[in-house]
Amino acid sequence: MDGRPPFVVLDGVDGCGKSTQAARLVEALRGRGLEVEHLREPGGTPEGEALRALILGRDSELSAGVEALLFCAARRQLLERRVAPALERGAAVVCERFHPSTFAYQAAAGGLPEGPLLDLLHTWAGSPAPDRVLLLELPVPEAAARRGAATDRIEDRGLEFQEAVRRGLERYAELAPELAQRVDAAGSEDEVAGRVWAAVEDLLG
Amino acid sequence: MDGRPPFVVLDGVDGCGKSTQAARLVEALRGRGLEVEHLREPGGTPEGEALRALILGRDSELSAGVEALLFCAARRQLLERRVAPALERGAAVVCERFHPSTFAYQAAAGGLPEGPLLDLLHTWAGSPAPDRVLLLELPVPEAAARRGAATDRIEDRGLEFQEAVRRGLERYAELAPELAQRVDAAGSEDEVAGRVWAAVEDLLG
Repeated sequence: MDGRPPFVVLDGVDGCGKSTQAARLVEALRGRGLEVEHLREPGGTPEGEALRALILGRDSELSAGVEALLFCAARRQLLERRVAPALERGAAVVCERFHPSTFAYQAAAGGLPEGPLLDLLHTWAGSPAPDRVLLLELPVPEAAARRGAATDRIEDRGLEFQEAVRRGLERYAELAPELAQRVDAAGSEDEVAGRVWAAVEDLLG
Repeated sequence: MDGRPPFVVLDGVDGCGKSTQAARLVEALRGRGLEVEHLREPGGTPEGEALRALILGRDSELSAGVEALLFCAARRQLLERRVAPALERGAAVVCERFHPSTFAYQAAAGGLPEGPLLDLLHTWAGSPAPDRVLLLELPVPEAAARRGAATDRIEDRGLEFQEAVRRGLERYAELAPELAQRVDAAGSEDEVAGRVWAAVEDLLG
């Protein structure tokens, strides 16, 4: 941190409220006078958007291993081109999705071994590291009701897959207790926004 | 090997004659009655061709680290979708470019550390492994004269870069002596084809 504004990640199952809460957090940080870069993964650069289209396109046939490599490439591109420059000029960064999603989707739900995947992410997309990773927790049926119809090939996979993802996110929180913080995402938007703010406020010095 | 037809890689600097010699080797293997899958990297699948366009496109701005991840993803896709099925049905595979190029371009010439890059390639694009990797060796000015004008953003990088690539390929041969075999690519097409054949003939049992 070194007194600089924070790099915060929001992650969680589809429909948990990541985008809504990320927007609220960005607004709150701006209310404190900070410049804020609001990013979502994969994407955020022309090359990252091309990878997003490839990864999520319903015509793509990709194994969990290839998906993991592509998410890692898109993440490194985002870290180099958007996150590092933002932090260097003194801006805060709020990013939707990061290592927990890759861990949950491609290892816990996708069958890749945990250790090599964490090694991949930390070695190849490890810097700059987030100051805090918030995991928005919501039961899968409730999240599915919030999110509505599936819109890409990963959302297509159904509730059982999402349940494996949810367990994977819990497992990630166990493996990275110094970084990850679980946040209850049930209740009204305002209630959750209050919990998110409480979970990052100490980073603002 | 287990008596199955071989998986052979041809690699070397731009203009060393990879494509010509790969075609000759394919023809020679077919002359022995084998089915042969002829592949080139990156590419070989719809997703791999999309990655090829992204990696080589002159509009792309990618660091050596992101390039390495994308080449690794394209390679894993090729191994899963084309190489493994070909070997399983009893076909031989001849592939232009593989780990040596990634090692030479992204580490030796691109500045990435050697160890983590080799770990990445062996962990994430390690199977099925080639039975032999032929490195076609030609001085860079001679290769540049053979190849003609640059046609993509990596070929754009000039002779000094190509020289670093050439040294990187030599270094790869030192690091993988059980797999890599250096082949003199100077002389006529027929002469080189003879050397290539001599370097793989023992694999045919």
